Formats: sequence, structure tokens, C-alpha cells
Amino acid sequence: MSNCFGKNLTLTLFGESHGPEIGCVIDGLRPGLRVEEEAIAQQLALRRPAGALSTARVEPDPFRIVSGVWQGRSTGTPLCILIPNRDVKSDDYESLAHTPRPGHADYTGFVKYRGFADPRGGGHFSGRLTAPLVAAGAIFLAALRERGVAIGTHIARCAGLEDRPFKHLADDLQALAHAPFPVLDVGRGEAMQAAVLAAARDGDSVGGVLETAVLGLPAGLGAPWFDTVEGLLSHALFSIPAVKGVEFGDGFALAELRGSQGNDVFRMEGERVVTETNHNGGVNGGITNGMPLLFRTAIKPTPSIAIPQRTVDLSTHKNTEITVQGRHDPCVVPRARAVQDSVTAFVLLDLLEDL
Amino acid sequence: MSNCFGKNLTLTLFGESHGPEIGCVIDGLRPGLRVEEEAIAQQLALRRPAGALSTARVEPDPFRIVSGVWQGRSTGTPLCILIPNRDVKSDDYESLAHTPRPGHADYTGFVKYRGFADPRGGGHFSGRLTAPLVAAGAIFLAALRERGVAIGTHIARCAGLEDRPFKHLADDLQALAHAPFPVLDVGRGEAMQAAVLAAARDGDSVGGVLETAVLGLPAGLGAPWFDTVEGLLSHALFSIPAVKGVEFGDGFALAELRGSQGNDVFRMEGERVVTETNHNGGVNGGITNGMPLLFRTAIKPTPSIAIPQRTVDLSTHKNTEITVQGRHDPCVVPRARAVQDSVTAFVLLDLLEDL
Amino acid sequence: MSNCFGKNLTLTLFGESHGPEIGCVIDGLRPGLRVEEEAIAQQLALRRPAGALSTARVEPDPFRIVSGVWQGRSTGTPLCILIPNRDVKSDDYESLAHTPRPGHADYTGFVKYRGFADPRGGGHFSGRLTAPLVAAGAIFLAALRERGVAIGTHIARCAGLEDRPFKHLADDLQALAHAPFPVLDVGRGEAMQAAVLAAARDGDSVGGVLETAVLGLPAGLGAPWFDTVEGLLSHALFSIPAVKGVEFGDGFALAELRGSQGNDVFRMEGERVVTETNHNGGVNGGITNGMPLLFRTAIKPTPSIAIPQRTVDLSTHKNTEITVQGRHDPCVVPRARAVQDSVTAFVLLDLLEDL
Amino acid sequence: MSNCFGKNLTLTLFGESHGPEIGCVIDGLRPGLRVEEEAIAQQLALRRPAGALSTARVEPDPFRIVSGVWQGRSTGTPLCILIPNRDVKSDDYESLAHTPRPGHADYTGFVKYRGFADPRGGGHFSGRLTAPLVAAGAIFLAALRERGVAIGTHIARCAGLEDRPFKHLADDLQALAHAPFPVLDVGRGEAMQAAVLAAARDGDSVGGVLETAVLGLPAGLGAPWFDTVEGLLSHALFSIPAVKGVEFGDGFALAELRGSQGNDVFRMEGERVVTETNHNGGVNGGITNGMPLLFRTAIKPTPSIAIPQRTVDLSTHKNTEITVQGRHDPCVVPRARAVQDSVTAFVLLDLLEDL
Repeated sequence: MSNCFGKNLTLTLFGESHGPEIGCVIDGLRPGLRVEEEAIAQQLALRRPAGALSTARVEPDPFRIVSGVWQGRSTGTPLCILIPNRDVKSDDYESLAHTPRPGHADYTGFVKYRGFADPRGGGHFSGRLTAPLVAAGAIFLAALRERGVAIGTHIARCAGLEDRPFKHLADDLQALAHAPFPVLDVGRGEAMQAAVLAAARDGDSVGGVLETAVLGLPAGLGAPWFDTVEGLLSHALFSIPAVKGVEFGDGFALAELRGSQGNDVFRMEGERVVTETNHNGGVNGGITNGMPLLFRTAIKPTPSIAIPQRTVDLSTHKNTEITVQGRHDPCVVPRARAVQDSVTAFVLLDLLEDL
Repeated sequence: MSNCFGKNLTLTLFGESHGPEIGCVIDGLRPGLRVEEEAIAQQLALRRPAGALSTARVEPDPFRIVSGVWQGRSTGTPLCILIPNRDVKSDDYESLAHTPRPGHADYTGFVKYRGFADPRGGGHFSGRLTAPLVAAGAIFLAALRERGVAIGTHIARCAGLEDRPFKHLADDLQALAHAPFPVLDVGRGEAMQAAVLAAARDGDSVGGVLETAVLGLPAGLGAPWFDTVEGLLSHALFSIPAVKGVEFGDGFALAELRGSQGNDVFRMEGERVVTETNHNGGVNGGITNGMPLLFRTAIKPTPSIAIPQRTVDLSTHKNTEITVQGRHDPCVVPRARAVQDSVTAFVLLDLLEDL
Repeated sequence: MSNCFGKNLTLTLFGESHGPEIGCVIDGLRPGLRVEEEAIAQQLALRRPAGALSTARVEPDPFRIVSGVWQGRSTGTPLCILIPNRDVKSDDYESLAHTPRPGHADYTGFVKYRGFADPRGGGHFSGRLTAPLVAAGAIFLAALRERGVAIGTHIARCAGLEDRPFKHLADDLQALAHAPFPVLDVGRGEAMQAAVLAAARDGDSVGGVLETAVLGLPAGLGAPWFDTVEGLLSHALFSIPAVKGVEFGDGFALAELRGSQGNDVFRMEGERVVTETNHNGGVNGGITNGMPLLFRTAIKPTPSIAIPQRTVDLSTHKNTEITVQGRHDPCVVPRARAVQDSVTAFVLLDLLEDL
Repeated sequence: MSNCFGKNLTLTLFGESHGPEIGCVIDGLRPGLRVEEEAIAQQLALRRPAGALSTARVEPDPFRIVSGVWQGRSTGTPLCILIPNRDVKSDDYESLAHTPRPGHADYTGFVKYRGFADPRGGGHFSGRLTAPLVAAGAIFLAALRERGVAIGTHIARCAGLEDRPFKHLADDLQALAHAPFPVLDVGRGEAMQAAVLAAARDGDSVGGVLETAVLGLPAGLGAPWFDTVEGLLSHALFSIPAVKGVEFGDGFALAELRGSQGNDVFRMEGERVVTETNHNGGVNGGITNGMPLLFRTAIKPTPSIAIPQRTVDLSTHKNTEITVQGRHDPCVVPRARAVQDSVTAFVLLDLLEDL
């Protein structure tokens, strides 16, 4: 199994949280796409911790494109983006090398890599690796915009509080594009932030649900078996740290309906075939039907909490306790939005190359 | 995108609902695995419509292994299974070739395959294609059992009614192994069946939730990015017709907890590292942690219903109405269980080959 | 490593020489391609042993298309072709199960598959498996012809005798299309056949060189690293049983020239860029340049010979001797031509889907 | 088609000849392998132009490992190596952007990348990209040595002159390991160098043949169809710039023999099965047989020559003439040796992971 993902378009992530640089290589981009450093910087800013809600670690994310771009456009050959690591306090973590943090990959990484992985700051498992993913995402999102495809994600739930649902998708996506705290109802967003801060004061953390809409996809993307649109997207979405569930359209709620309620009946809208409802989230039989693509991800509460927790010592094989030091987000949901947009853009751009 | 799936172990499905034969090719099986026709027949029986709940179409599923088995054991070369199609009434469907059934892949298949796909009985999209998948699954499940891995799935919810949760996993999985209606509480199962029949009497259909547990997996399967266990499994699970959501461990419910509630703390159990709870469903950072793997799929109500529905005529580009003829399950959840077990076994066996 | 090959277009071969059926699955074909059974039968005829030169085993190669074709055209879903095995004399081979034939895969197959492979008639390694490959090739060749691409192969050398080189490619390819003994100079072909028969009378066998030309390919196919046209083609060509070398353009002879002799200089021919010579065989830097693609394969002498040979007994670990019984071609070069055309068509059609 | 190659082990190359940095990402390395910077530096030195034979461009090849190594050992997560570009004189090349050099990828790259590729110094097509490939190769070669596998390559032919054949493989490979001009007979090597210099004085260039031997491979690597050892190796070997042919064992010469001459008969050597001869180069039926793996590549004369050549102007569509400026090797064969060893090591290490 591999860190190189995709079919027509492939993405390879590399680097460790406290190594000199992290980065990614994108292969299979069409030649001639505009690659604007400003757009990458903006997308990276959306991933950056926003104000009171987030870790104190400063991440200005300077990046360098070392290949694949010539005179402002993609060359069609592999595009490598490098992001140097800075402001690293390795001491916070090193004592934890043999006492895995609950809810983290410390233990599973230790087993998989037989004790040889770089343990500092989560190493290759660190959420820090989503920075090059988001930088790549900026390029994918721009390529999709050139083809008339728009992607937007809002915090549908956070700390048990709910945002309003999508209404006028085109407007909603535009409003979300640069919102640092991505909600559709600003008041509810403020309530969410207050709830996150309350959890943080308790030394605790919260999770939430991200909902994504995609406008402008043609019908006919995907395949009936294995490479369904849902399967390809979920394959990639579960790489977003803390995602534990993915549902399309009404998802689990659809399982509670009767067929007569859940079927999306067809009708003509001028020359276009549309459905009257969109319980299926724009996908029938694994293939896009031309309606907006809609899905949600469940994001678990940040496992790094200030409250002491029981764990084991992998060197002595005894039970012990740890208190996770260092700076941690009490809620990664707002930052995960940029990652979700990037991952979605990647899979859809790959699928569009099949047409 | 492709009908050939997997890395070490690959599976290719072929055939159409009303063609002469359907089948699959499995490549990458270890040589020397016992392949018992009886085990395949039993697994196919679990997929067969059970009593009053299901379509009247008789599917005895005779199958032939045409390659890859010699003297009762896998040769290590590609194993092809063929299942002839029988008892086909194509007339039921042909009138529907240009009037796509809501909730089905008729429209998206028409677009993707530009009108050239075999429209009879859903063609290559038909749930009938899950028969070779289940036959292959019998081989995968046996190979996993040889390695001490057991898989079981129950109907966690159906028609709005709930089964009891997993308790003693080993016992529960054994009880489920050959149960025609896979629930842990027989009484609740009877209530579910009654509710399905009530929907059927209304010409309607219902959905549900399937929950799977896997015992005996080693820690260390999967990868941090892209090829996470959750990503690989969900990629395959969304191929099960009607699946619209996948969640691991507590899934969407986990998004509502605080970190202190959702973290699974570690402790030693003799020589083994275990977690006290299993909110994460046996996966941390995309990699198995040695605890039971737990996940749920949301299965939408069968889109084929007897109630008339609005649709469009793709030849005249006008609105119209259809009544879906033919024999249809009012609920595919019980039958989907065998498919879910098969798909799960496939992905896990592929992952185990990486060790 | 896998029996499923290709990127946009994939091909999976299955079956054993003496099993009930052999076959292949083609995935990723465009919907709407004409699939003519007559064209498949003709291509299979080119692979059939021709007259005195070949084994006495009769292979009429009846085949069935069991999926992926509807009303004479490809559906776009997986296309499976089955060919039953007939006229099998397994007794000839069974005594050889533990005494590997020199030059064959008996020993390496025994090691790789740990003694579990079907030993009868070479099992999955048998040249018989090229029958479904050639049947698939007929479909690929027809799809290429629709795009203006023509492929032809002649016996450049056989038993030490040489055919004339390609001259007027379009005419030469047409002449080769249905020639049972594919040479450009009929007289030299007769001399070759006489030489083969002389070897056969000695209980021996001969090899040769197949040369392929492809007309009508656009410039721009392939990639600079790894997925070069030469790399992709050679990857597939070495699957043709007995191929031990592949060279493009002047190949090994080019290594003897100076740069000023081997460089193909460019000039305009109307609107087209052409090269004056074609020492590079239509490929520069791994990518097609629009000139005819030219390559040659070295085919070793058939390892099955009637002369007694030394070998080992894998059960007793002692030296022994065998005489290969059964019916064998004294030269597979003429029959390998159809396989070479098929494999070439497969790789090129896959590459064309990238455009 | 993709710059990401391999199955268990994948390699991605990125960068352009005159960009800031070039590099590669290796994914799938086992955790715990020693990674010694000294070994990488030594391997890069073998690729560096040797004395009078080569371009005046100085390439000290400083490199940085930016991920995947922790405390001197592979972590098992992606390993990225970066090599900065230095001493670049872009002016030499820019005038050539629209006048493709004969024998180079300028024209095919222009077509494939639609004029968007970086034209400076060959861009992504440049032989410069073999530097990260060789750096990666040093790691692969060390990993193979840990498993008892040794690889060595000598110049079998150059400028029409021949080296002596392999005799005592273990000794020959050891002698080649650090030889700057890799021949088995030093005197013949001096004659070759003189012949290369003679061609260089004429403003011309020469090619040659590289022969590789691999000792210590187990029997059983490879597959009967598609993923043959020969197919996998040749797929990668044709990425070495200027390779136009690949042959295994006796290759094209084997096509001239009779079966009784070309078959390698088996005998027991103690407990081991060996063959008396090795005309098949250690591969039967696409699978290693435990004998030394032997193959040769044909390397065409360097297309960059000082003699004026005819070409076309892609902007005016007229015939024109160019004289290739800049510093060029009159013969890349000696330097290609390090690349051939690296590519071979990569493919074999990937194959060994299948066991």
C-alpha cells in the first residue's frame, strides 16, 4: 500500500513533522494550467489555525515550487512543492516516543514501522502533512474552476451545534470560499467557537461534521464496481486526519426512509435531465448524475488533550499515564475544511481526465 | 477507472444481468489454499432471497470454477468463477430502456456508456453481479479463517428498527455465520421482517444499516495517507449496491463526543497492548491497532418499487411516468450482508499480503 | 505482480492448458466499438498451427463472448471471452510433473507456486493462453483501424534465413494481414519453411526474429520516464512465450553507429514534421514522433524437442533424463506473429486513451 | 501514464535540468534499512563524467535527504532526495526551443506537452534526472546486498570495440563495483576510450552495449504473463536515456540456435537445482530460475553532436539547420552504467517484496 494515489493524476506526499522539509509531487497535471503562487498562499491560509481556536504554533507556510511550472503554467511534468518546517519544539514530544497517545497513530505507527519511524511530532502521520496536500489542492481547485466546477465545504456540526443547511448552492459556495471559519450562518458559527473554547478551557477537545457541495460536474463520472465516485472519494477522504465516517446525499438518514421517499424522480429542465430532490447526493449506481455532489464527513474530537490519560510504556510493557504537552487545536474541524476541499478536488480532477 | 481492484490480490467482475454468464477473476491468491465448492455454495445461499422478504426470482446459483484450482487447492494463478444466468424475463425491462428508473443507475449508465450498455435487467450494474463477488468472498473468508481472522455482519437497523449491539464478539460472529436473517436478537429480527412486509404491501421498500465486526486482525495493517484501512475498505464497500454511507467505530456519533470521551486509552493485557474502549473501531491513524475492526454501512431503500414514479423519456426528452415491473426485493439489507462480508474479506486479505 | 495489465485498458488472462476453459477479460474498452466474431475467428486462425510446420494438435478455437458486447458493439463494461479446451491428452505430460523440461517454465513455476500449479500441458504457462490474447487482439486491432492505425509483423529471420526488409509499409502491412506464413518475400519464406522442417526431422527446433511496423500513430504517445513507449511495449512483448530480446528502430545495430549516422534529422513534409531516416523506430525520448513505429523481437527455438535431454527429478533430487512427448511446434515464430500483433495493439490502444 | 513506477516499491522522479532542484521520492522501502550518505555519494560519483571522455560541466551532486530517514535508517515512510542544480548556462539552449535537436526528445516533448514544457537543457527529459535515480539506486543496491544480491554492469561494446565476457562473476562484479570506466579488460577499455576521443575530435559521438549480471537472486521471482522478470526490467531499462534494445541471456543470438543448443539442461549441484549453461539468462517462463540474471542494453550514440544538422523551425514551419552548442558527452555509455545498476536494483527489490 502506497503514498502514491490516483490514476490519471497522482499525488505523492512525503516528509515528517520535524524534518527539514515536507512536500508533495503531483504527476499527470495537464500542461498549460495557470499555477498562481497567490492562490496557493490563500488556500494554505485557510488551513492555518484561526485565532483563539487553535494551537499557538505559528505556521506561515512559505513554500517553493521546485519543478513542473514554467512561466506561470504547468509543464505537464511532475510538479513538486516543498514546505520547510519551522518553529519546531521537538522536546515536547520526545519523551512520548514509547508512551503512545490515546487516539493517535503513535502505537499503530510503532507497530507498522517496527520502531524505526521518526517519532517527533507524529512524524509522517502529523497533520502537518496536510499543508502540502492543501498547496496541491489550490492547483487542483483552480484547474476545476477552469472547467466550471466549484467546491465548497462548511462546518455542518461542531461541538454539538448545527449550521444551517445549504440553500442557494452557488451563493453559499462563494461565501465559503475565503471564510476563515466556514459556516453559512455567522451567528451559529460564533456559538460553535464559544463551545470550542469552553472545551479548551476544560483541557478537552471537540469534533464535528464537514459537509461538502460540488457544483458543475458532468453526469457520467465514476464506474459501477469498485471505482464508484463514492468509493474513490471516501478512499481519499479517510486520509484526512480524524475522519471516521463518510456519507453521500442523505447517507445514514436515507437508510431510514422508504423507497418512495428516497428515490429522486427525474424531470426535464429545458434540455437537461435533473432530479426533483437530491437524496442520493448526485450519484446513482456509483456514477455522477449531473446534480450537485453532496457528502459529509465525521471528524472525531482532537485526540491531543491536556487532561492526563492512561496508556502503556512500549519499552517496559507496563501501564502508565501521560499528559500530552505541546500546542494543540481543541478542534481541527475548521482547518480540516481546506484539506477536504483539496482531497475532493484531487479525486474529481482525476475522474474528469477519464472523460 | 476500472473493474479490476486490489493491489496484491485483484478482483475483476464481468457480466450482465441477462447475458449468458457472469463471473469474476481473482488474481494473486496464494497457492495451496483449500477451495471448497461446498463453502462457496453456502455463501451463495446467504445471498439468495430469503422467503417472503424477497423477489420471486429463483436463483439457485450453480457455479463453475474454470481455472486456478487444481486438486482442491488454489494454484496461485488466476481463478475464474462462472455463474450462468437463468430464469430471465427480459421483457419486463426492455420497455424501460429509455425511461430511467429513479434511484437506479439507468440514467447514469446511459450517459457513461453513451447508450451502448446492455439495458436488460440493469445490465452490468445489476445486483446480480454480486453473486460472483460472494462466490469469491467464500474463498477469501476461508483464507482469512486459516489465518485466524473471523468476519461477521448483522442488520443493525432495518425499517427503522434496531438489533441489539455486538456483545461477545466471538459468539456473535459464530451465530451470524449461517443465519439466513442475520440479527443478534431473533425477536427484533422478526419485527424487522414484519415491517419489511408491511412496506412491501404498500408497494414500497425499506433500507437499513449493516454492522460488521472483524476479529483476529494483527496491528499494523494500512498506511497513514491514502491507503488507510478505512479508505481501502470504504472504497470497496461503496460498490455494494445501495450503500450511501460508511462509518468506523462510533463514526458520526464520535463527532459528537469530547476528546476525553472518544479517546481509547491503552493498557496491557498480559503481553498484548489493548484499548479499554473501541470508539475508533480498531483503527488509529489509518492503521489497525489489533482491536476488533468495527464499521457500519448505510443501505438505502431498494429503488425498485411498485408505486408509479415520475421520470423522463431519454428518446423524446419529455417527462413521463413509469411503474417498475418485475420481481423486486422490498429490502436488500439481509442479502447485502453476504456481499459486505465478501468485500471486507477481499480488502483485508489484500492488506495481509503486505505484511 | 499481476495477470491484470494496462492502465486505461486492462487485460486479465486466466486458465490452464488442460482445464475446461481459458479466457480473458478486457476492461476499459470504449462503448460503441464494433465487435465482429468473424474478425476474431480470422485472427485466431493466424495463430493456429500452419500445415507441416506445426503440432498435430487440432485447435479450431471456438470461442464465446460472454459479456461486454450488446447488439454487435462493445458496451464499455468488461468483455469476457471464453475458449473451451479440447482434444487434450493429459497423459503425455503427467509423468513430467517432477522432471522439468529444459528451457520451459516447469521448474520456475514449481518454485513460484510451491508445487500447487496445474502441471498438465504447462498449465497457466502454456502457449495455449495466447489464444484468448489473440482473440482480444482482434478487437484491439479493429479499434485501432477505426482510428487509422495499422499494425503488421513479418518473420524477419527464421532458422538463420532472412526475409527482405520493409519497403512500402502500407502495402507490406496489407500483404501481411492475412498471410498464414508472414513473410514479405514468398521465396525466402519457402526456404525458411524447408529449414524448419529439416530441424524437425532432426527432432530439433529453431527460433527467429519478428519485426513489427505500426503506421498512423500520432506523435506524443508515451512518457519520458518509466512509461516510455519502448518500456510499455517491451513489458508486454516479453509475455509472448520465447521472446528473449526487444529492440526499437535499429536497436543493437544503432549502438554501433556514430551520432551523425544515427540521428534522424527533421524536415517539413507539407504541414507535417517528419524525419528523413528512422533509425530510432519512431520514438524519441520515450515518446512517439509520428514516424512508423518499428521494433523486433528475438524468439528463441522452441524448448520442446524430441531429442532426449538431461534434467533433475524434483521429488528425488537426483539427475535424470527426459524425452519430451506430445506434439510440438518445431518453430513458434509464425504463430507468435498473431500474438505480437495483439500485444502491440493492446499497448497502443491503452496509450491512445491517454490523449 | 505516469512518472510513478513500481508496485510494492515506488519511485517518482521530478525536476527539470535548469530548475532549482531535481529529486525523487521512494515509497515502500522497508523500515530499518541502513541509509549511508557516503554510499550515495559514491554511486553518484560513478555517474559523474569521467575525465577526457565527458562534458566539461562540473557536477559534484550535493544531495539532501529531506524525509524517510531517521537516525541513519529508513523509516518506512516516503524517502525524498533533493539535488540542487548548479553551474547552469541556460543561454546555450534557449535559442533551440523551436528548433528540435535530431535524436532528442525536443520535438516529441513539444508535441506531448503542447509547448508548455521547460525547454532549458532538455527540461524534464534531461539525462540530469538520472542523478536522483542513481542516488535512489545506492539505497536499493545496499538493500539488495543485505539480502545477498550483487549487481554489476560492464561496457560490453563501445565504439565498435568489445570487452571480454563475464568469467568469474563474483570476482568480476567486485572489480566493477567502483571502476570509473567499467570494463573487465583494462586494455580494451583504454582502446575504447581512445576511440571515443577520436569520435569527439570529429565533433561526433558513439554508442555501445552495457551488460549486467545479478548474483544471488532466488528462484521464483516474476510472473508468467505481463509481469515477467524480463518485462518488468525492460520496462524500466528503456527509461535510461538512449537505450534502444534489451536482451536477456543470449537474446538475439539465441534466436539463431536450435533448441538442442539453446536449452539449458538442469542438474543437481548438491541440494541446489542449477542449469549447465545459461543461454536463457537466469529466466524461464518469465520467472527467475536461481542462475545469474544476465542482460544487455543497446545504447545509441549521444544525439548531441557538434556537427551541424538539419532540422525544422516549429514556429515558422520551415526547414533550417542547427549546431548543438553546450557541453556534451561524446559517449554516455560509461555513465549510463550507474543508471543501469540503479534501475535494475529498483525492479529487483520491488520483486523481492512479493516473496
